[in-house]
Amino acid sequence: MTSNPLIARLDASDAEFSSQLDALLAWDSVSDTKVADIVAEIIAAVKARGDAAVVEYTNRFDRRTVTSMSELVVPAERIAAALAAISSEQRGALEAAATRVRTYHEHQQQESWRYTEADGTVLGQQITAMQRVGLYVPGGKASYPSSVLMNAIPAKVAGVDELTMVVPAPDGVLNDMVLAAAAIAGVDRVVTMGGAQAVAALAYGTETIARVDKIVGPGNIFVATAKRAVFGQVAIDMIAGPSEILVLCDGQTDPDWIAMDLFSQAEHDEQAQSILVCPDGDYLDRVAAVMARLLPTMSRADIIRPSLANRGALIKVADMNEAVALSNRIAPEHLELSVADPEALLPSIRHAGAIFMGRHTPEALGDYCAGPNHVLPTSGTARFSSPLGVYDFQKRSSIIFCSPEGASVLAETASTLARSEALEAHALSAEYRKR
Amino acid sequence: MTSNPLIARLDASDAEFSSQLDALLAWDSVSDTKVADIVAEIIAAVKARGDAAVVEYTNRFDRRTVTSMSELVVPAERIAAALAAISSEQRGALEAAATRVRTYHEHQQQESWRYTEADGTVLGQQITAMQRVGLYVPGGKASYPSSVLMNAIPAKVAGVDELTMVVPAPDGVLNDMVLAAAAIAGVDRVVTMGGAQAVAALAYGTETIARVDKIVGPGNIFVATAKRAVFGQVAIDMIAGPSEILVLCDGQTDPDWIAMDLFSQAEHDEQAQSILVCPDGDYLDRVAAVMARLLPTMSRADIIRPSLANRGALIKVADMNEAVALSNRIAPEHLELSVADPEALLPSIRHAGAIFMGRHTPEALGDYCAGPNHVLPTSGTARFSSPLGVYDFQKRSSIIFCSPEGASVLAETASTLARSEALEAHALSAEYRKR
Repeated sequence: MTSNPLIARLDASDAEFSSQLDALLAWDSVSDTKVADIVAEIIAAVKARGDAAVVEYTNRFDRRTVTSMSELVVPAERIAAALAAISSEQRGALEAAATRVRTYHEHQQQESWRYTEADGTVLGQQITAMQRVGLYVPGGKASYPSSVLMNAIPAKVAGVDELTMVVPAPDGVLNDMVLAAAAIAGVDRVVTMGGAQAVAALAYGTETIARVDKIVGPGNIFVATAKRAVFGQVAIDMIAGPSEILVLCDGQTDPDWIAMDLFSQAEHDEQAQSILVCPDGDYLDRVAAVMARLLPTMSRADIIRPSLANRGALIKVADMNEAVALSNRIAPEHLELSVADPEALLPSIRHAGAIFMGRHTPEALGDYCAGPNHVLPTSGTARFSSPLGVYDFQKRSSIIFCSPEGASVLAETASTLARSEALEAHALSAEYRKR
Repeated sequence: MTSNPLIARLDASDAEFSSQLDALLAWDSVSDTKVADIVAEIIAAVKARGDAAVVEYTNRFDRRTVTSMSELVVPAERIAAALAAISSEQRGALEAAATRVRTYHEHQQQESWRYTEADGTVLGQQITAMQRVGLYVPGGKASYPSSVLMNAIPAKVAGVDELTMVVPAPDGVLNDMVLAAAAIAGVDRVVTMGGAQAVAALAYGTETIARVDKIVGPGNIFVATAKRAVFGQVAIDMIAGPSEILVLCDGQTDPDWIAMDLFSQAEHDEQAQSILVCPDGDYLDRVAAVMARLLPTMSRADIIRPSLANRGALIKVADMNEAVALSNRIAPEHLELSVADPEALLPSIRHAGAIFMGRHTPEALGDYCAGPNHVLPTSGTARFSSPLGVYDFQKRSSIIFCSPEGASVLAETASTLARSEALEAHALSAEYRKR
């Protein structure tokens, strides 16, 4: 490993590369028993005392002075005011993004189906939307209107009846862009509560808040711990690890572009991971030089620098086949194929949250407005997980409608198997339907 | 609540009905810290020492005397012997069931899709199968060949490359029907290990066992606790609660049939739940009388009796509309619509794992051979969960391929939103692609 002031340089042909890569990718989610204890206490209080507990915790943690839950529900006029307060450019951008995200997600709509067998037996699958969903949105400085669009729109496309957004309002302050995004995305109700108390209220319900079927959206460690705790009582989305990008480049993309793509990942936080893989060592040198030149000019240099130093890497490989094999080993959240012919590589990509194809598709376009979701599986979980989508807000019921003839035939098979499992009532229940 | 020696009688018009129903449905999953400690120790040992640890635990817990992991892998001859050992009737039943289950699940196959926008930008979603899946099968008396079919077939229809079945063999004994079902379902490899050590070996890999992407299948409390512990490292299926059936009947089905349908649920275990809902009180009396008459004749009466007494109920409602509303509140695992026209009720059913329609469709047919999966969401989780299916063994990757023109337009929107979120590198990365 060549030491570098900015970012590690690795070579896949080194004997130690495999263990170096493991060390680079290693990331353990923090589980803090002190946090878990606090969260358990908050959940128990909200379960036991409902609205009153939520009001108390909200006043304490968010420095509010409300006396009832109804004061936490954001009135329609406040949302209208937010829509009026943002610039027309911002409103246009939110609406353009929302339209594209909606159009893409409409392609994910699932249809019920059924088929009829020769003897009249009908089999099928019925799709229904979840009834109520809660969307958690962080308050304060880490308020991301794009995240509101990405979580809310698939739920509404899925047909969720009632989408409640919760967002803490420290000192009563709300972000106008977040409220505007909620209105544009079709959120049904906004409640200014946050933390474990908001998660508990959504999971168990209170006098004012109806219990939801699923809770989605990012949050701090208290929120993540609370979501884990209520999992099973309600569905939750994944608990995300740090965001990551893997860029596979053939060495022909403008190095400025690739350097900035890596920066855009690194600027999220110090744990974010940016990796570039290329068969051309000289190209990696050029990207490193660009990074060194541009970094001091970046407004978030203080975040980008430790992120690249701790978790970034430029990796030289023998050829693009080795690059693809490496990608499948990593199973990245974001995969950029910055090559002349990305379609040629695509069939070999086995695991990735989102695949950004060609030199003109930086991850940033997907983060905001290309259409696909920006909530993606992190930390290698693309091996078994998918982007957030319409399917995450729907569920299926199997349909079985046997004709008398069909039941009579099936009863033979069922009875034989039931008796092999020593389940006599199963066998008799089937046999009663024999002719 | 009328006291009854066999099963509780409830009336939905009673003032206390709602709280009685809550009490009836209440079920808390047991979490045992002693078990959790043992499981944590086993997982740590398997992570640290791989095959050697698995061999030690297997010898200890299953009273085996093997010296290496290779002895735990079931040879092809043993599986062939199992297929030869079962009766031709049993083999025929397994094959008939497998064929129907496979045909049904092939309808769940998901297709990749893409669309091209006017400026040449391509958006889509690519479906890929998980690479390796582990299927846990309990050993000993609770060995269910039907469960092997129901878990293995959707995985193979999904296109999973390598499906490893693990099943403990206490004293070296294996169930021929289970091995035969594995062969018929297309399981790639059978390893005789069980408990937390098997779950750990699948989740983290050992010298002999490749790490899998998902672990499915039922197990005892050690297995369930281990699955919870490795969740995140790998995907898992749901941790099932006790099995339940809700029968909505118009009072016109042969009471013997309904009594046996309720018994077939109750015979699983003492926690299983059987509920019948009907607007006709006289019919409920007739079913109760049949149950009293038939129960003493049942081979599993000792399980059925406490199950019905603890968790069963016959509930009188005003009409079928109230019955459907009750069903949506319960969100049952199995819902039997034992009525003349079940299609008329179906559009109102919002939450149910599987819906058995008409008088000729007892749950037992679905348990074994109708086609749909018998792994279903329990304890009200049908509000947000689906039957096990092909979709549980596949994942999606978003595809974004911007044309230069498309990127240039999207960059405007992305840049505006990125700057609203104070993410400058995101904005620049997008702006670099502007013309």
